[in-house]
Amino acid sequence: MSFEPLKGIRILDLTSVVVGPVCTWRLGQYGAEIIKVESPEGDLMRGLGGMSPTGQHSGTYLHLNRGKRNICLDLKKPSAKEVMQRLVASADVIVANMRPQALARLGLDADTIRKTHPEKIYCLITGYGTEGPYAGQPTYDSVVQGATGMAGLTLKRDGTPTYVPMLICDHVSGEIAAGAIMAAVIAHKASGTGCSMEIPMFETMAAFVLQEHLAQHSFDPPVGEAGDLRLLSPYNKPIKTSDGWISFTVNTDPQVRAFLNATGRSELVNDPRFTSVAARARNVGVWFEVRGAALTGKTTAEWLELFKAADIAVQPCHTLDTLPGDSHLQAVNLISYEVHPTEGRTAAIRSTIRVDEEYAPLQAPSSPRGAQTRDLLEEIGYSEEAILAILAEKAALSWDPAAS
Amino acid sequence: MSFEPLKGIRILDLTSVVVGPVCTWRLGQYGAEIIKVESPEGDLMRGLGGMSPTGQHSGTYLHLNRGKRNICLDLKKPSAKEVMQRLVASADVIVANMRPQALARLGLDADTIRKTHPEKIYCLITGYGTEGPYAGQPTYDSVVQGATGMAGLTLKRDGTPTYVPMLICDHVSGEIAAGAIMAAVIAHKASGTGCSMEIPMFETMAAFVLQEHLAQHSFDPPVGEAGDLRLLSPYNKPIKTSDGWISFTVNTDPQVRAFLNATGRSELVNDPRFTSVAARARNVGVWFEVRGAALTGKTTAEWLELFKAADIAVQPCHTLDTLPGDSHLQAVNLISYEVHPTEGRTAAIRSTIRVDEEYAPLQAPSSPRGAQTRDLLEEIGYSEEAILAILAEKAALSWDPAAS
Repeated sequence: MSFEPLKGIRILDLTSVVVGPVCTWRLGQYGAEIIKVESPEGDLMRGLGGMSPTGQHSGTYLHLNRGKRNICLDLKKPSAKEVMQRLVASADVIVANMRPQALARLGLDADTIRKTHPEKIYCLITGYGTEGPYAGQPTYDSVVQGATGMAGLTLKRDGTPTYVPMLICDHVSGEIAAGAIMAAVIAHKASGTGCSMEIPMFETMAAFVLQEHLAQHSFDPPVGEAGDLRLLSPYNKPIKTSDGWISFTVNTDPQVRAFLNATGRSELVNDPRFTSVAARARNVGVWFEVRGAALTGKTTAEWLELFKAADIAVQPCHTLDTLPGDSHLQAVNLISYEVHPTEGRTAAIRSTIRVDEEYAPLQAPSSPRGAQTRDLLEEIGYSEEAILAILAEKAALSWDPAAS
Repeated sequence: MSFEPLKGIRILDLTSVVVGPVCTWRLGQYGAEIIKVESPEGDLMRGLGGMSPTGQHSGTYLHLNRGKRNICLDLKKPSAKEVMQRLVASADVIVANMRPQALARLGLDADTIRKTHPEKIYCLITGYGTEGPYAGQPTYDSVVQGATGMAGLTLKRDGTPTYVPMLICDHVSGEIAAGAIMAAVIAHKASGTGCSMEIPMFETMAAFVLQEHLAQHSFDPPVGEAGDLRLLSPYNKPIKTSDGWISFTVNTDPQVRAFLNATGRSELVNDPRFTSVAARARNVGVWFEVRGAALTGKTTAEWLELFKAADIAVQPCHTLDTLPGDSHLQAVNLISYEVHPTEGRTAAIRSTIRVDEEYAPLQAPSSPRGAQTRDLLEEIGYSEEAILAILAEKAALSWDPAAS
């Protein structure tokens, strides 16, 4: 039996780009019904996330918008506003990642909606919390990486701040928002009342960074400089082999002994600088130098075999070209192929959460803009005549398979 | 009224280091009761995460273990095993991040527990799924960064793979696991039955990377090279000002026009290479060069003012030294101070999720090892005499405030 605890929960998805779509994608994986509302200009990520056969479903868009029905509305038109009111009324949860000012202008802010519908769960993912001086300012992933010190983590190591080459703050905040909404669903099941949630990306990711890196500055007075020095060390890096790169970690005393023996440095096994977690922490500089030395005497495959035999955590460093072919990912069928309504044969990434030995079935592929406009208008009570009128005045747009 | 939807849910936390502790910390923020079981050797992260006044509560440990009661058991002793059985019986959810083999040896694997207790939710966070060739192998954050291609993302940009200097895979997987457990709680409330969940870090983080970076390889045949080329570009970086670094993003057409005008390049405003999302995507190389040029003519403060006036998303690049002093974080009191039982005055990071205009109250500070051993033994039905016997044979250890 498939695990769909959110089945029957209808989520009105007013989000775009990444943080919101990640959130609703995750909720869809747990069985929620997601209705994505898109403007005629469309979600920026359709084009921004890279190339696609039609230019309308970049890889990122494709993967983050599985399992969502799509209605395209031009909210400048009064009849689209009425459609939106009916969609709101039909939903259990409303998720938005527009700026608060824009939502208020559209009458789609939490206060306005929950005045009429106190039972709704409303989740706003914002750049910044509404109480501080940055409230209402626009933000994007890289700005959050800069503002939270995530980019600055490499300043000492590399001489410049650098971005993680992913939309990491969006992606993580979206997962956290999905969790928050599930917490609100639990509360709703107990009390019948909704709530208004706000998840500010800046504060959320600043907390995320500081949990790991406030470190010695967590104490007053500080017990040293800020930062987890193991992670910030220039020696904390993948290790070069004679034909590539490997990643490994040795943390416990037995792992350290196995590692020193395997790499031909058994004379260090009883060196008091390295014999305990506390000793290695005190001598982190020299320890990381030992640990981070190049291992060019053997190939990646040879080191893998040697380390795995010693029960050391190790893997080759994949690139985007080699990752999909990884033998484990292949064996567990992480990626499968399907035919997308407009993009031809496309890769589908399945859920990685296994429940009672099953993974959630693949949700439907991402929809063209307005693919379910007609169905949804009908569901919320519009007659065929009314639907035609709405489409004729372009208050709603419907995808036409024949035209694509 | 504070938002505690998981109040009354008891979570037996058999985890250590980062991924599991993040998961249970998050559940604690939503009101769950967390019982952390620690071995006499203790959670590696107490010492590994950096310095602290006693050497027993590194910053990372401190922040990830708030709101947890702590019982210290030596599971090699039969009476500790019996204590564990009673703890299991008393819990609604069991979370573990040990290797499956180790759990099976202790009789604490999902199959063994759910044979007697089918109503329990059991969540195992593993390195690798149980079906593929890497099943049961050890792993750590950096190994997952290497194996998922996250480290390799910088290979073209920097000439080497590099780690994100955070425990990013642990941290993200922990948040995802917390969400999965809340989904299981929703299912349990509906059906009364539990489930057995498995969250393999490698597959979960590989999916996370591929959602963003399979990109042009999401299509068969591929429509270009793998990767979101905007993010992988060497020009995707914080920008140098005359006195520091700033982060900004311009995505929409109005933002791009405002940016070109603000930086004195208005001649490019009508350049057809840059006038639409699609055009900039086609010309991503030269567009990123324009966008990524150093802005050394003015100070960070001057650029901030100019960009913010043009409604461009921008912030200074913080370091770990400047981040806690950020004016917004200060205004919203992200960090407060408290007195820890053993470490003196310590920083506490509050929840960043605002529900009905309130943040969850701060959970109790992280506990010394065994701080609630006695309380918990009493709660699960041991008499004072039995408790003394268990402590005398060192099957359980109790923290003594007087001795610390």
